[in-house]
Amino acid sequence: MSIQIPRGTQDILPGTVELWQYVEQQARTICRMFNYKEIRTPMFEHTELFQRGVGDTTDIVQKEMYTFEDRGGRSITLRPEGTAAVVRSFVEHKMFGNPNQPTKLFYIGPMFRYERPQAGRFRQFVQFGVEALGSNDPAIDAEVMALAMQFYQSVGLKKLRLVINSLGDAESRQAHREALINHFSPRIGEFCSDCQSRLEKNPLRILDCKKDRDHELMKTAPSIMDYLNDYSKVYFEKVQQYLTNLHIEFVVDPNLVRGLDYYNHTAFEIMSEAEGFGSITTLCGGGRYNGLVQDIGGPETPGIGFALSIERLLAALEAENVTLPIEESIDCYVVALGEAAKDYSVSIVNDLRMAGFITEKDYQDKKIKAQFKSADRLQAKFVIVLGEDELDKKVVNVKNMATGEQHEVAITELVAHLKEVR
Amino acid sequence: MSIQIPRGTQDILPGTVELWQYVEQQARTICRMFNYKEIRTPMFEHTELFQRGVGDTTDIVQKEMYTFEDRGGRSITLRPEGTAAVVRSFVEHKMFGNPNQPTKLFYIGPMFRYERPQAGRFRQFVQFGVEALGSNDPAIDAEVMALAMQFYQSVGLKKLRLVINSLGDAESRQAHREALINHFSPRIGEFCSDCQSRLEKNPLRILDCKKDRDHELMKTAPSIMDYLNDYSKVYFEKVQQYLTNLHIEFVVDPNLVRGLDYYNHTAFEIMSEAEGFGSITTLCGGGRYNGLVQDIGGPETPGIGFALSIERLLAALEAENVTLPIEESIDCYVVALGEAAKDYSVSIVNDLRMAGFITEKDYQDKKIKAQFKSADRLQAKFVIVLGEDELDKKVVNVKNMATGEQHEVAITELVAHLKEVR
Repeated sequence: MSIQIPRGTQDILPGTVELWQYVEQQARTICRMFNYKEIRTPMFEHTELFQRGVGDTTDIVQKEMYTFEDRGGRSITLRPEGTAAVVRSFVEHKMFGNPNQPTKLFYIGPMFRYERPQAGRFRQFVQFGVEALGSNDPAIDAEVMALAMQFYQSVGLKKLRLVINSLGDAESRQAHREALINHFSPRIGEFCSDCQSRLEKNPLRILDCKKDRDHELMKTAPSIMDYLNDYSKVYFEKVQQYLTNLHIEFVVDPNLVRGLDYYNHTAFEIMSEAEGFGSITTLCGGGRYNGLVQDIGGPETPGIGFALSIERLLAALEAENVTLPIEESIDCYVVALGEAAKDYSVSIVNDLRMAGFITEKDYQDKKIKAQFKSADRLQAKFVIVLGEDELDKKVVNVKNMATGEQHEVAITELVAHLKEVR
Repeated sequence: MSIQIPRGTQDILPGTVELWQYVEQQARTICRMFNYKEIRTPMFEHTELFQRGVGDTTDIVQKEMYTFEDRGGRSITLRPEGTAAVVRSFVEHKMFGNPNQPTKLFYIGPMFRYERPQAGRFRQFVQFGVEALGSNDPAIDAEVMALAMQFYQSVGLKKLRLVINSLGDAESRQAHREALINHFSPRIGEFCSDCQSRLEKNPLRILDCKKDRDHELMKTAPSIMDYLNDYSKVYFEKVQQYLTNLHIEFVVDPNLVRGLDYYNHTAFEIMSEAEGFGSITTLCGGGRYNGLVQDIGGPETPGIGFALSIERLLAALEAENVTLPIEESIDCYVVALGEAAKDYSVSIVNDLRMAGFITEKDYQDKKIKAQFKSADRLQAKFVIVLGEDELDKKVVNVKNMATGEQHEVAITELVAHLKEVR
């Protein structure tokens, strides 16, 4: 009996993996232009990191983590998101002491959440994210959003919607929090049990509830906009001004609340507006988290970042019918006839590869007709034929499949010849 | 209190991550030339896959796996190696039905083994591996070894030693197995308990034992070379002939036994011969596994592959004092003086990045002198200065840091100017 892949995970196979390689390469190139450097943290961390860094009250920590004990009895969790580990690393390696600040980092890698598998949602999925740690300049908020938008545009997405909000600083949030408690308390019994427990712990997240979103108190809930203090207001205006200067369109949505506990000031999401993209339209989420580094044991350090799923990006590309420029053909296929030629072809193939040509041959003892068929299927640009006659004369026959031209070329001249004509 | 990284794992940080990016890029390029396509399987699999695909008697399965129950009560294991999952995927997606055979795949990604952490050995480590499924041609054995050797050479390693052996086909192995049992049985009581349990299950692995390697029976143990049948002998000779034709040096070591159960015919290792590289000199291990696809539930399909650790490769580079060609400098640093210039510089920076220049600015409200210092530290090739005077005149001052030349350039011409002079 055969063994199957774990539920909610997927294999990424040739034919599809090229799309992943392409979009990840774009992400790396754009991070390079923006001077964000890659960081790679382990696939798992001590469970406590996520309890502290993502938040005990979040769905992620309460319901969705792959948590287990390792053979040494320590509680370990497969990372459900990227920010907490990047911040853990920032603190552990004392990156705050580096003279180049802010510390600008990016990551691309698998994350793990035990969710109900559904279309476009996997238990292992790949996130690309950036974090800028150490700056309170609204220009860096704009930079982070510009990076995300430019990444999406670079792969060909057009139907994008950037939604921003400010959650204010600690003082503003506290005032808003009290207003929310006052607003919901009298009728909290009409809300779901999750919302009831959110009321005291984190009333802001009631606004994010999927079950109660149509309750009439939702529409009349106090808006953070009315509770922003002067610093927070100016900060948010500045962020918007920079976005405008960069010609990045956006809309302000005072109800935008990110699912994680640690955000303040700028919060943003990028949605796909492609028709038929499905009910979950958020492609990317991010925001400012000025308290997180301290929560994880480091010095007071402001931070901002985003994370986006590559799976959802690829789904959006499909919804917009974008075709990525993937090269599928190979350069050379070497056809060999007879035992001696077959043996010799191994060396020719190796020489071509070492010279930088994508080259293939037969490894299944196929007849000559079948070898030509393989060359066709692989879309070889040049088919190189070596028979016994050719071998005696130390030549090969080179056929350019685009033009139909054929040349007899000395084996010692083959690489030079192909470099000239390709 | 701060939270630390799990024991035996590491963060790969800027300054080091560039080495990883470089060697992985080399691996991808070489796989492309050899026409191996990337496959990405999940970080975890059903535990049974590794019990069946790696072998119940191996140290990996018995002692080193990260095995746990997921929230659905299924036994899941973080992958300890790459081959079993690639074969699982090959079977599950019926790749054997694809007209292009053999199926040539590669992977690069984290693997997990709960081992005692020590220098150069991690509980999460990265393997690059290839698998060629569907060919019984000794030329593909040579191809796989050539690929590994070329990869190492492409990153600058020179002190390499390729060791090969043949474990023979099923018939040869059976004959050798019986000879081994006859040889060790009378005195098996003098061997460690692991070896005692190996005697019946897999006597070949006694030869691999680290505890008993100095026992006198080891030296006199029957060699597989004396038990190879004609097919196996010719096969092994052909592999050696191809390696010779490709000018790849190798030595034959009849005692080379790979730690995994599923190998037959060709087995090989690549060692570092760099001085002071330490006691574990194996960089890469591979071989042929003609029974594995069937063991995992697929049709009878021959296979061959290798796996190598990127951590050990980097250690070998260090031991050989190889410096990789890593570009560390940035293209432009934009220095801004005054509020209005600072605001405007955000747009200039963005334009430069969109034009493909690696560009940075200050996000910490630094004085002008400190901004120049940052530009220096980041090794900016061009420093672009925007003060209030310049802003009024819609120009910037561009300084080429290599030549010391300075130019006043209209802001609208900046990108074109830099494209010309860089």
